[in-house]
Amino acid sequence: MPDRIDLNSDMGESFGVYQLGRDKEVMDYISSANIACGWHAGDPVVMEETVRLAKEKGVAVGAHPGYPDLMGFGRRRMELTHAEIEAYLLYQMGALFAFAKAHGLPLQHVKAHGALGNLGFVDLEVSKIIARAAASFSKEIIFVALAGTVMVQAAKEIGVRFVQEAYADRVYNPDGTLQSRKIPGSVIHDPEKAARQALTMVKEGYVVAHDGTKVMVKPETLCVVILQKIRDELKKASITVKPMGQ
Amino acid sequence: MPDRIDLNSDMGESFGVYQLGRDKEVMDYISSANIACGWHAGDPVVMEETVRLAKEKGVAVGAHPGYPDLMGFGRRRMELTHAEIEAYLLYQMGALFAFAKAHGLPLQHVKAHGALGNLGFVDLEVSKIIARAAASFSKEIIFVALAGTVMVQAAKEIGVRFVQEAYADRVYNPDGTLQSRKIPGSVIHDPEKAARQALTMVKEGYVVAHDGTKVMVKPETLCVVILQKIRDELKKASITVKPMGQ
Amino acid sequence: MPDRIDLNSDMGESFGVYQLGRDKEVMDYISSANIACGWHAGDPVVMEETVRLAKEKGVAVGAHPGYPDLMGFGRRRMELTHAEIEAYLLYQMGALFAFAKAHGLPLQHVKAHGALGNLGFVDLEVSKIIARAAASFSKEIIFVALAGTVMVQAAKEIGVRFVQEAYADRVYNPDGTLQSRKIPGSVIHDPEKAARQALTMVKEGYVVAHDGTKVMVKPETLCVVILQKIRDELKKASITVKPMGQ
Amino acid sequence: MPDRIDLNSDMGESFGVYQLGRDKEVMDYISSANIACGWHAGDPVVMEETVRLAKEKGVAVGAHPGYPDLMGFGRRRMELTHAEIEAYLLYQMGALFAFAKAHGLPLQHVKAHGALGNLGFVDLEVSKIIARAAASFSKEIIFVALAGTVMVQAAKEIGVRFVQEAYADRVYNPDGTLQSRKIPGSVIHDPEKAARQALTMVKEGYVVAHDGTKVMVKPETLCVVILQKIRDELKKASITVKPMGQ
Repeated sequence: MPDRIDLNSDMGESFGVYQLGRDKEVMDYISSANIACGWHAGDPVVMEETVRLAKEKGVAVGAHPGYPDLMGFGRRRMELTHAEIEAYLLYQMGALFAFAKAHGLPLQHVKAHGALGNLGFVDLEVSKIIARAAASFSKEIIFVALAGTVMVQAAKEIGVRFVQEAYADRVYNPDGTLQSRKIPGSVIHDPEKAARQALTMVKEGYVVAHDGTKVMVKPETLCVVILQKIRDELKKASITVKPMGQ
Repeated sequence: MPDRIDLNSDMGESFGVYQLGRDKEVMDYISSANIACGWHAGDPVVMEETVRLAKEKGVAVGAHPGYPDLMGFGRRRMELTHAEIEAYLLYQMGALFAFAKAHGLPLQHVKAHGALGNLGFVDLEVSKIIARAAASFSKEIIFVALAGTVMVQAAKEIGVRFVQEAYADRVYNPDGTLQSRKIPGSVIHDPEKAARQALTMVKEGYVVAHDGTKVMVKPETLCVVILQKIRDELKKASITVKPMGQ
Repeated sequence: MPDRIDLNSDMGESFGVYQLGRDKEVMDYISSANIACGWHAGDPVVMEETVRLAKEKGVAVGAHPGYPDLMGFGRRRMELTHAEIEAYLLYQMGALFAFAKAHGLPLQHVKAHGALGNLGFVDLEVSKIIARAAASFSKEIIFVALAGTVMVQAAKEIGVRFVQEAYADRVYNPDGTLQSRKIPGSVIHDPEKAARQALTMVKEGYVVAHDGTKVMVKPETLCVVILQKIRDELKKASITVKPMGQ
Repeated sequence: MPDRIDLNSDMGESFGVYQLGRDKEVMDYISSANIACGWHAGDPVVMEETVRLAKEKGVAVGAHPGYPDLMGFGRRRMELTHAEIEAYLLYQMGALFAFAKAHGLPLQHVKAHGALGNLGFVDLEVSKIIARAAASFSKEIIFVALAGTVMVQAAKEIGVRFVQEAYADRVYNPDGTLQSRKIPGSVIHDPEKAARQALTMVKEGYVVAHDGTKVMVKPETLCVVILQKIRDELKKASITVKPMGQ
């Protein structure tokens, strides 16, 4: 039974005058921040502030690159070539790296955002592109791979450092993928239920899919939105929350 | 008398289907490439190709960050705060760094583009912001400071590594600044004349301003557009062309 | 003494997932909506929804064009040529017109946003460009001119239909311009005070500047942010609220 | 046998400093210009210049709206909702309309660009969205429907004014769709061959597909890239070139 887990959450999604998310609050509960890189969300000023905040709170920072589609928040699939995807990822990783560097922090991880991430879950070649972009940027950077998907295979084939991820507040399909956001009820809003799912995954190594199937997942990091309850339950279960890279 | 000089030129200014410049040709004559970072020009695919080309040709790469204004090619002044300028510069340096890193090259230098560069020539505080952004990104990176402007003072005050730059093909004002592009004749199109100006600066340490004034400049790097003639003349004068960082 | 006034407010400033403003509430109190056109704020889906909402509420619609600077919300001055400003305004007016047309509404007015509007207040040539863009688009469209500024002169010189505007919730300078937002206290947040300023302007034809000077203003439209109190006071004073174009 | 045809071509695809196409030359040969609207190509200054040029040359103007993807020139499919597509089309039609209006020209037609147009060729629902956007903007505007595709059905179902279009310089599939640009040889570069295909379509009412199949097409407008030869051949055959809307 693991005695530690990483909690990651999407941060730095504000843009100019537009505020999104409650980064200051959330930063108190997580150990790794996935920071938007200015393409689907975020801007350089927001990125700087988010990295600064993460540093103050002892939270590790990672890049959260997405499609060049601010209007669609990176949630709309775009038909890109592999070369385009790789270049877009490198660009965004580098951009965030600059703020981490300026604040004396390493760029701990990279996690693809939205429709690009969703594509990676089911497309081995795209997953390999993401893994390869990470590896070509740095041997230290961790590729966040959704447990039970081709991302894990891609990470192994490319030979990049990686961790397996699971979602505390999303309903699972029996094949281990996430149920689409478009299906009502696919996001768990009940803190009790999300905390229970989190704990079962961390302690027992499985998640119950929407049809009752037990899906084996052994996450090293949990993507979380509802935080306080999960953090409390992890504490009760004596599970330490630490950045994935430590 | 110096026996070496660096030749720098703006590269990677194409965007999507839009082609600009003759990078493949020019890369044969220069020793340092100022590569656009996707804001006033360039896109990630172009950046990758430009870094790859520079590596093949043995040309050192630097970031050429500009205003967030593709429609105006970064040539239109924007009223930004110092915090915004610093964040925008870090973002763009990091983005280019990623491609350099992936190709095993260091990010040699940073040179501000267009209206942002022009502002730096005359505004000490803005120059210090540029120098500080460079220094906070890396102690190795070289800040390109236009000789005879507050950029040199800014570099010294901030304590960043820097080189002094002069322009081979631009007409000078008696105070050592460049005559505005808006004034007809401010860009020298005659290769003979540009080569003569280049050689006088490198060998004699001065440039003749539009009113006949001799302005002292001791450039370590020359910004060049007309290349072959200058390269030939430097060769005849036994001056080696080498990247500024070597 | 006038028995009618128009109340205008900025609407449709959301963008993609980013929500800004409380359009649904505000629409109940105003008679004219200044709708963002996708450059400094707004996107086509938001524009369509805002025009639809305005139609439902019987509110007249106008274009609120700004600089091409979503990251700065159009509040950062850009050095554009007059030809660029005119083309950018036409583009945005046309874009909003399409949604008005599709909903069977006329494009009632145009009001420049943010730093572009501020420039128009003090630069006659820019004001004339705005007025000319309006006139060249349509003889029916109303140019909203800040009372007491060169905008009024520009409107007369160009021969465009126009109304004079005043601000209910902004502190005035003795010369009739608005005190800069950068000066603390320049925005009136007290509903009582804003309503009093509104009523004095509409009924008495003047506003008291920050130094006590009485500045003559006879607005046909009031720009408002704090709404309910102003609307109540206008009702008590038997002043009808009607779109500027009726 | 028809004695007239319209020749349309894509115009106004430059952006800022980036030049694309030879609009001034091409404008001498065509009767209708499909003008980019600033999303996949073009900017307001370019749009103004292109409309002005079209007016000088007696060429009718239409909107050529595309995906919000300048970096990909609108050639990369994006997963948009129907509401998004409709709003994006209205926005772009309106933007171009403003320049036509300012120059006293009607907005003659609308033709979807690139990947959005390609989607319309094969997706009836998307075609209906395009047709509906056109119809809701104006009863006069002509929807350009590729002959032999669901676009024609969409136009009829929506009840929009439309013309059937064919391509002079593209290879056809036996089902009447265009062979993908990704297949080598799908664009005809030989002026003789393109002119022959043009003439056969206009005079005989068919095109020979890549497998020899005769596909019936009776175009009212021809999309052309290679112009002089086609124009010459049409003249020899006594076919008048006139805008589709006349």
